[in-house]
Amino acid sequence: MTSTSPLNIALIGFGTVGSGVARILSTQAKNIAVRAGREIRISRVVVRDPDKAREFLPAGVEVSTSIDDVIDDPQIQLVAQLIGGIDPAFDYMKRSLAAGKDVVTANKALIYAHGSELFERAAANERTIGFEAAVAGGIPIIGAVTQALTGNQILSLEAILNGTSNFILTRMLDEQHAYADALKEAQRLGYAEADPAMDVDGTDAAQKLAILTQLAFSTPVKLDDFVRQGIDGIELLDLQVAADLGYKIKLLATARLQNKRLEISVQPTLISCDRTIAQIDGADNIVAVHGDAVGNTTFSGAGAGQLPTASAVVADIIDYATGRTAVTFQSILRSSQQEPWPVQPAEELRRRYYLRLTVDDRPHVLADITDVLGRNEISISSVRQDETPETDEAGDGTARLVIMTHTTTEGRLRAADTELSKLACIRGASIRLPIAD
Amino acid sequence: MTSTSPLNIALIGFGTVGSGVARILSTQAKNIAVRAGREIRISRVVVRDPDKAREFLPAGVEVSTSIDDVIDDPQIQLVAQLIGGIDPAFDYMKRSLAAGKDVVTANKALIYAHGSELFERAAANERTIGFEAAVAGGIPIIGAVTQALTGNQILSLEAILNGTSNFILTRMLDEQHAYADALKEAQRLGYAEADPAMDVDGTDAAQKLAILTQLAFSTPVKLDDFVRQGIDGIELLDLQVAADLGYKIKLLATARLQNKRLEISVQPTLISCDRTIAQIDGADNIVAVHGDAVGNTTFSGAGAGQLPTASAVVADIIDYATGRTAVTFQSILRSSQQEPWPVQPAEELRRRYYLRLTVDDRPHVLADITDVLGRNEISISSVRQDETPETDEAGDGTARLVIMTHTTTEGRLRAADTELSKLACIRGASIRLPIAD
Ligand SMILES: NC(=O)c1ccc[n+]([C@@H]2O[C@H](COP(=O)([O-])OP(=O)(O)OC[C@H]3O[C@@H](n4cnc5c(N)ncnc54)[C@H](OP(=O)(O)O)[C@@H]3O)[C@@H](O)[C@H]2O)c1
Ligand SMILES: NC(=O)c1ccc[n+]([C@@H]2O[C@H](COP(=O)([O-])OP(=O)(O)OC[C@H]3O[C@@H](n4cnc5c(N)ncnc54)[C@H](OP(=O)(O)O)[C@@H]3O)[C@@H](O)[C@H]2O)c1
Repeated sequence: MTSTSPLNIALIGFGTVGSGVARILSTQAKNIAVRAGREIRISRVVVRDPDKAREFLPAGVEVSTSIDDVIDDPQIQLVAQLIGGIDPAFDYMKRSLAAGKDVVTANKALIYAHGSELFERAAANERTIGFEAAVAGGIPIIGAVTQALTGNQILSLEAILNGTSNFILTRMLDEQHAYADALKEAQRLGYAEADPAMDVDGTDAAQKLAILTQLAFSTPVKLDDFVRQGIDGIELLDLQVAADLGYKIKLLATARLQNKRLEISVQPTLISCDRTIAQIDGADNIVAVHGDAVGNTTFSGAGAGQLPTASAVVADIIDYATGRTAVTFQSILRSSQQEPWPVQPAEELRRRYYLRLTVDDRPHVLADITDVLGRNEISISSVRQDETPETDEAGDGTARLVIMTHTTTEGRLRAADTELSKLACIRGASIRLPIAD
Repeated sequence: MTSTSPLNIALIGFGTVGSGVARILSTQAKNIAVRAGREIRISRVVVRDPDKAREFLPAGVEVSTSIDDVIDDPQIQLVAQLIGGIDPAFDYMKRSLAAGKDVVTANKALIYAHGSELFERAAANERTIGFEAAVAGGIPIIGAVTQALTGNQILSLEAILNGTSNFILTRMLDEQHAYADALKEAQRLGYAEADPAMDVDGTDAAQKLAILTQLAFSTPVKLDDFVRQGIDGIELLDLQVAADLGYKIKLLATARLQNKRLEISVQPTLISCDRTIAQIDGADNIVAVHGDAVGNTTFSGAGAGQLPTASAVVADIIDYATGRTAVTFQSILRSSQQEPWPVQPAEELRRRYYLRLTVDDRPHVLADITDVLGRNEISISSVRQDETPETDEAGDGTARLVIMTHTTTEGRLRAADTELSKLACIRGASIRLPIAD
């Protein structure tokens, strides 16, 4: 192989992202060939349904439904693995690596669940994996953490990594919509899947944060290591009260070194309105990285969508073509050998909290609640009871009580939660959100 | 050389940035060795004054005042060129390359003025130049443009690239300070040089924008190609009126493809308060990149300062140690061969404008001025005359008139400027700023 021979690649999956990759490779073919130092040629495409009409499919490309056609084709050096989920994506990736092919992918669920095994297999076969598109779409955050900020001990990552949730929260506040209506709108506009569970319950953001945490802190974490909370319990009232108090609520993914322990959480969080991260609206993503040398740097943009995600996949393809991926991947493998940080137990996380309780609208209720908090050593910084609960969909004689606490631990709040839930005056849904300072 | 032998580097200059590099290489030595795949060792340091006490100087390192000691040392593979200005930095860099040494640098003035010659010399000697630190300090924008976004046709760059100017504008508005006072404060805090001319007149930002323009649009530009305007004519009144109208004034560096021409300017610009770029305060920098695939992405953080700048230099050193720089630099050389875009003549730039005129406070003045604008086909969207010009330091019977225009050309405004300056009613300083939409 000389560096001027074309690079033959296969696309496994030709859906939103796969067809976007084909589109960019065709519209930018000339520039990309210059930057990559060689022509990049899609030689094969594998899909599920061979009969679907496919926009952006390059003329003359063989479309098949069998991965074997790719595995058995010695011309193909690089496989772009662009189908979602674990099965059969995991198997296809293992087989591609075993066949001596390098891989790029946008599949965060797979990298989260089986990244370390895949990386080991790649290393054993002297192959590489590029996965810039797996986190934050078009925002080059993997590159930032693995290349641009390597002179730093990264101290924290704070990020909005799920565009669907951010879109829903933004629309609720801007349009005075209830959660269910904003979710429906997200689905109608194609931001949310038919089954949006992984987006709104924080799973998707947590998977992405886990990938970044491995790279930034060389610490492998699983979903169980996190405090994880979705946005599905958020009411319009919460967003409004928070706004009154100078905060926005965002599904914030945080990994932070604190006293030589790693704190990790994905939770809807109150963030002061004047912080950059609070100002990221709609489906956009942001990652704020605090490094000991560089200080605070932020990276924001489209975290999903056809072309932004494909932009990252294509950058990985070009990096592969130039030989840069080989270097970067070695560096990632070496870094993964570093000593991991111990993960802070969830109970010991220290934050301020926002509590919104639905309570009977009668005397003594506040006394009962503050008594529970007091006994759990949680001190209150402010209390607010909504006198005209316009947003009270129940309209059943309940009131909404909002309590802001001083700094305390997750453990104390959990203990208090248990006691509160037993109080007769507590009715229906309550929510508890941390405040990021 | 095996990849596990230490990399011997020389630091030319051990001032703010040079000592920062030494500090990071020492505090992060272990992690950096893992990421770089080898130990990085400062073997020589060259400075002007051999007797100065130097913090962070590694024990046993030879400090000399002669570049010859570096040139003649075959052990040194990489030279970190960290002195400012052209002379002798340019000569030292040429000699380093000629002696077969690779170079990293933070010197934007040099890369701006002689980058293409240096790149050619590096290529001829099969050497490389890393210069991430030369633009926007710790923000990895060179990497973004040359690596992460290579699948895109970049359509525009909008940036705040001079921390000193941004600090001054921020302090003026926040503290109700006059320009001169905010400048003094910037100097006292070490943000501005004793001679701040290059910062406040837009030269520094323009040099950095020129470097980015070369990379993003493969179009070499010089300061004369720009509309360039400094912040020194801005009064507190301008910032206040702009704020009332929903804008912040920022020293905005813009390079944009418009009708297949490249528009470039560095000017104090009114930017709608709700845009991310308007919210970058203090000494921070931001670069917003619009790519045809990725859409809008933004990169922000500390654009200068010891450790942020050194963070970028160290990343370049690590990239060199891993072999990544060799790949990236080839890619930059290839891209520079691409067809440049024609630069839009300044006269043809189309924007809305903010005009602030100091005029005699008497009848007919407005009629005289609108007549001039009208004859130059400039249509007015709003007029505002300050009735109580508290900020009028003159207090001499003049008034401040603020006019916002509809979209028009720089050429028409220039023609109108000439006519306006001849009107008897115009007294003292006026200013004209574009509005970014
Ligand atoms: N969409 C985004 O904005 C975005 C952003 C970041 C990351 N990602 C990730 O990118 C990956 C692809 O997402 P997408 O949105 O492009 O998905 P998609 O639109 O559903 O496309 C999936 C593609 O994979 C093919 N496919 C599915 N199962 C297959 C199988 N068993 N054998 C062969 N082909 C199979 C489908 O074939 P048919 O066309 O025949 O159905 C389709 O072409 C996922 O991992 C996703 O998490 C997506
Ligand atoms: N400071 C920042 O925040 C920043 C940010 C981005 C980029 N940069 C760029 O980084 C470069 C260095 O800036 P800096 O702030 O570190 O400058 P600095 O603090 O003034 O340090 C300059 C260093 O160069 C040495 N030097 C100057 N002339 C020399 C000569 N003829 N021979 C040998 N050594 C000489 C000085 O020696 P002595 O110590 O003996 O005087 C000093 O160690 C400049 O190009 C600057 O534009 C700086």
